[in-house]
Amino acid sequence: MKNCGIIIVGNEILQGYIQDTNSRWIAKKLTDLGYNVKIILVVGDIAEDIAEALFLTFKLNLDFIFICGGLGPTPDDKTVEAVAKHFNLKLIQDKNILDDILRKISFLKEKDIVNINQTKWITKMSYIPEGSIPLKNSLGLAPGILLQFKGKNIFILPGVPVEMKTIFAEEVEPRIGVGEKRVVKEIILKSEESKFSDIVEELENKYRKISIGMYPHYGKMELVIRIIGDESEVLSAIEKIREESKKLGVNIFET
Amino acid sequence: MKNCGIIIVGNEILQGYIQDTNSRWIAKKLTDLGYNVKIILVVGDIAEDIAEALFLTFKLNLDFIFICGGLGPTPDDKTVEAVAKHFNLKLIQDKNILDDILRKISFLKEKDIVNINQTKWITKMSYIPEGSIPLKNSLGLAPGILLQFKGKNIFILPGVPVEMKTIFAEEVEPRIGVGEKRVVKEIILKSEESKFSDIVEELENKYRKISIGMYPHYGKMELVIRIIGDESEVLSAIEKIREESKKLGVNIFET
Repeated sequence: MKNCGIIIVGNEILQGYIQDTNSRWIAKKLTDLGYNVKIILVVGDIAEDIAEALFLTFKLNLDFIFICGGLGPTPDDKTVEAVAKHFNLKLIQDKNILDDILRKISFLKEKDIVNINQTKWITKMSYIPEGSIPLKNSLGLAPGILLQFKGKNIFILPGVPVEMKTIFAEEVEPRIGVGEKRVVKEIILKSEESKFSDIVEELENKYRKISIGMYPHYGKMELVIRIIGDESEVLSAIEKIREESKKLGVNIFET
Repeated sequence: MKNCGIIIVGNEILQGYIQDTNSRWIAKKLTDLGYNVKIILVVGDIAEDIAEALFLTFKLNLDFIFICGGLGPTPDDKTVEAVAKHFNLKLIQDKNILDDILRKISFLKEKDIVNINQTKWITKMSYIPEGSIPLKNSLGLAPGILLQFKGKNIFILPGVPVEMKTIFAEEVEPRIGVGEKRVVKEIILKSEESKFSDIVEELENKYRKISIGMYPHYGKMELVIRIIGDESEVLSAIEKIREESKKLGVNIFET
C-alpha cells in the first residue's frame, strides 16, 4: 500500500486562528482511494520549517506528499520558494501560467471584481521549480504544482479549500489513480470499551493486513469498532467480534 | 519566546474519519498565553510513528511538547508505551493512579453508568514512564502525564476533547504559566491583497519581532492583515498600513 504525507502551511493555523480542514479532506479522499496517510504536519510560512517537514516525509519514504497553502501572491506566501530551495531547484517562470493569470485578472477587472495590476507579486505566482508540472487552477490564480523528485510525487496545492479541492479532483486524482482496495466495516456495540479489548488484541495479532480502532461514545454506553484493510481479514475479524458479542450477551446496534 | 509542538495521535484522524480539533484548541491557548507553536504533527497509533514525531520535536529544540490521544484502556491506545520506549524509560505502575481509577469505576458502577471489571486493560492506564508526573484527570479515567526529559517538558494528554481541556486548565496552565506578552492587531481593508504586498514586505524586513499574515476574503473584496508580536512593533506596523491605505484611497473597515 502506498503511503502519503500531508503538509499544511500557514501561520494562522499554528496560531489557532483558523481550523485547518484541508488535511482532513485530503486524508479522507486518499483513504477512500486506497492510500495510507502516514503523517500530517502543520508548519508556518517559514522556509526552514517547510524544509523540516519535507525532510521528514522523505525520511518516512512516502510515495505521495501533498503540500497545501502559501501559494498566493503576498509576501507571506513562501511555499514554492521554500520547496525549490529545499530540493536545490531553480524557480523558472512558466510563460503559459503567466498568460493564464493575466487573462484571469483582465476578466475579473472587466467584471469589476478586482482591480489588480501586474506587479512582481502577481508575476511571482508564475514561477515554478525547474522540471515541475503546473496543475491547472480553474478557480483561482496560483496554479498547483507537481514536482517529481527521487521517485516521490510532491503535489503543491493552494490553501483556499475550494481551489484545493478542485485541483485535487481535476488534476491530482487522474494522476494518482486508485491504490489498493480496502474495506471499511464498523460495528456498534452496547458496551464499554474494555470488554472487547482482549478480542481486539487477539485479532490485531492474528490479522496483519487490517487496522482496528475502538471508539467509545462516553455517556451513551456505545462502542464503535472500525476495521479497515484487506477484505477477507476485515470480514473474518467482524465475524469474530459478533461471536464475542453473543458470548458476552452484548447487543449489536448496527454494522 | 518559547517554542511548542503538538503531536496528535490517532488513526481515525489520519484516515479522515474525524476532524481533529484538539490541535487548534491547544494552539490558540498557547498563542494566547504567549508561546509560539512551531509545528503540529498527526501520526497514527503506531509506536514508530510516534517516535518519529518526538524525534522531530527534539530536533527543532522545542520547549514544550504536547502529545494528545491514545491514553485509553484499549489495545489501540499505544501512546504512553511508545513515549516510554522512545526515551528508553521503564513503565512503572503508580499505585495512586490505580486507586483513583478503581475508585472512579466503583462510583460509575454504583450509578449503573458502566460495568467495567479490573482487567489488564484498566490496570494499563496506571502505568507511567519512570520519573514522570501524573496529571489529574477529573473527568475521565486515564491521567495526563508530564515527562521532563533533557530540559524539555512533554505533556501527554487524553484525546477526548473535554478531558484534554480540563487537564490543560487544571494541570498544564499552572505549570507552564505565561510566556512573552504579545499583541495581536487586525486591520480589515476594502482591497485585494496584492496592493498591500509591497508595504507588508517592507514591514517584514523592517520589524523582526512580529509576524504578518494577509488573508483575503475572496468574493467580498476584503483583506484582513493580522500582525502578532512585540507591542510597539505591531502598533508601528499597523500605523504604516493605515498611512498606506490613505495613500491608496482604500477604506479601512475595522481594526
